[in-house]
Amino acid sequence: MIECELKNTDVLILNIGTELTLGVTINTNGSWLARKLTYLGFQVKRIIVVRDDEEDVVEEMRRGLNKYGLIITTGGLGPTYDDSTSLFVAKALGVDLALNEQALAMVREAHRARGEELNEARVKQAMLPRGARPIYNRVGTAPGFYFCTHNKTLIVSLPGPPRELQPMFEGEVEPMLKGLTGLEYLEDFIEFRGLTESSIAKIIERVAKENPSVYIKTHPRLSDKGESIIQVQLSTHTNDVARAGMLLESIKKKLLESINEEITKRNTG
Amino acid sequence: MIECELKNTDVLILNIGTELTLGVTINTNGSWLARKLTYLGFQVKRIIVVRDDEEDVVEEMRRGLNKYGLIITTGGLGPTYDDSTSLFVAKALGVDLALNEQALAMVREAHRARGEELNEARVKQAMLPRGARPIYNRVGTAPGFYFCTHNKTLIVSLPGPPRELQPMFEGEVEPMLKGLTGLEYLEDFIEFRGLTESSIAKIIERVAKENPSVYIKTHPRLSDKGESIIQVQLSTHTNDVARAGMLLESIKKKLLESINEEITKRNTG
Repeated sequence: MIECELKNTDVLILNIGTELTLGVTINTNGSWLARKLTYLGFQVKRIIVVRDDEEDVVEEMRRGLNKYGLIITTGGLGPTYDDSTSLFVAKALGVDLALNEQALAMVREAHRARGEELNEARVKQAMLPRGARPIYNRVGTAPGFYFCTHNKTLIVSLPGPPRELQPMFEGEVEPMLKGLTGLEYLEDFIEFRGLTESSIAKIIERVAKENPSVYIKTHPRLSDKGESIIQVQLSTHTNDVARAGMLLESIKKKLLESINEEITKRNTG
Repeated sequence: MIECELKNTDVLILNIGTELTLGVTINTNGSWLARKLTYLGFQVKRIIVVRDDEEDVVEEMRRGLNKYGLIITTGGLGPTYDDSTSLFVAKALGVDLALNEQALAMVREAHRARGEELNEARVKQAMLPRGARPIYNRVGTAPGFYFCTHNKTLIVSLPGPPRELQPMFEGEVEPMLKGLTGLEYLEDFIEFRGLTESSIAKIIERVAKENPSVYIKTHPRLSDKGESIIQVQLSTHTNDVARAGMLLESIKKKLLESINEEITKRNTG
């Protein structure tokens, strides 16, 4: 677990990259990280995609620093001219961008393994906000970094390519964050066939209002044969897994009973 | 084309849904809409995912109303208790939520086609911000809506399921927006094999700085055989397609020359 105090367990995921706002690339990093962080007990409050643009990134970072215990950025750590996340984060924090010796050693080693000498573009990957610590990237050449602010926000910056980001998160970041929230996440799904959302909306609303600690959501979809399927999702964050597990079970039972009753009424009415 | 003046061609895409912040669902609507809007000449400045939460939605809407000519929301238009986008948009605009007769006719017809009578949850789908106009949904039951603000922002709200959103956008929204920006979007790609981003970073930077009107970005990836491939993307918004097309061609030629020169130098050096 990391030595960094977080002001709360709310999260901003900030995905940086003009290829995302142009719609050239689907933002799979956003949902992948959201899933991971949810299971670590965090509440993801925003997933924001911005272009590679200083004003836009700094605006979202500054807003986020006031609100969230954790900010995760993706993208913009590579060697090209528009990879400027380290610089933008430094500006948002009001610190210098400085060559980080530990990061430089990582960058040198990554390029040596590829038979490449260091050049200006490659060294740029080791320039981090002063006070940040590098995160090792065993797939690509650009290290990530993390930074604890005085205002109790942890910033974690990871590269954009999923094949780099995912092992870095799982290998380096997840162990840092594990146990930090003191919360666990529970989730369950029930499926009903041949019903529409609007026919069970009242039941869902009643059960949801009776159980404010549990998030209850219906997802409508069609089966391959065109049959209407309603998936009901139950989820909650808890510090008492046994109790929350029993609560989800009892809600599930109540929903099954009420909805089956509704189906019977329909078929006989 | 719609009778609505836009303060600028900047766009906020606001994707509403706790299933997105939990990472249960990948936000494909964000990139799908971003692509469409980019080709219509708009500049997508933000794609923001928020939970089904009044405070969060109203905060992003209010911030967006000051900045963007176009705000597109997705999700939260259905019949269930947590589908509250119409209410949240009304609150952000400072107008009432009111039963829209045209929307009610659409909702009644959609449910009649399914053999369903109207109930409270179904009628809720026809409650729109006062002054909004409904957008016909031929796949699902919930109409979308649009609203022109005095402050020159067009708000368009669409349902979350892609199989509803996509035909609504293409059938109803795209014709409204077509020609509104006076701009067209051009894009081209070049691929180089066996190079890394950092070996051509200087060339890319020089060509990008010589051509500030064109966005030049490298996307690294691996081929099936594990070979490094760099895709260079060139794109621009323009009101003079012929001229911009020639510019992209000349940049492409320059990049091919410079990078092939670099490859030759490498192989002989």
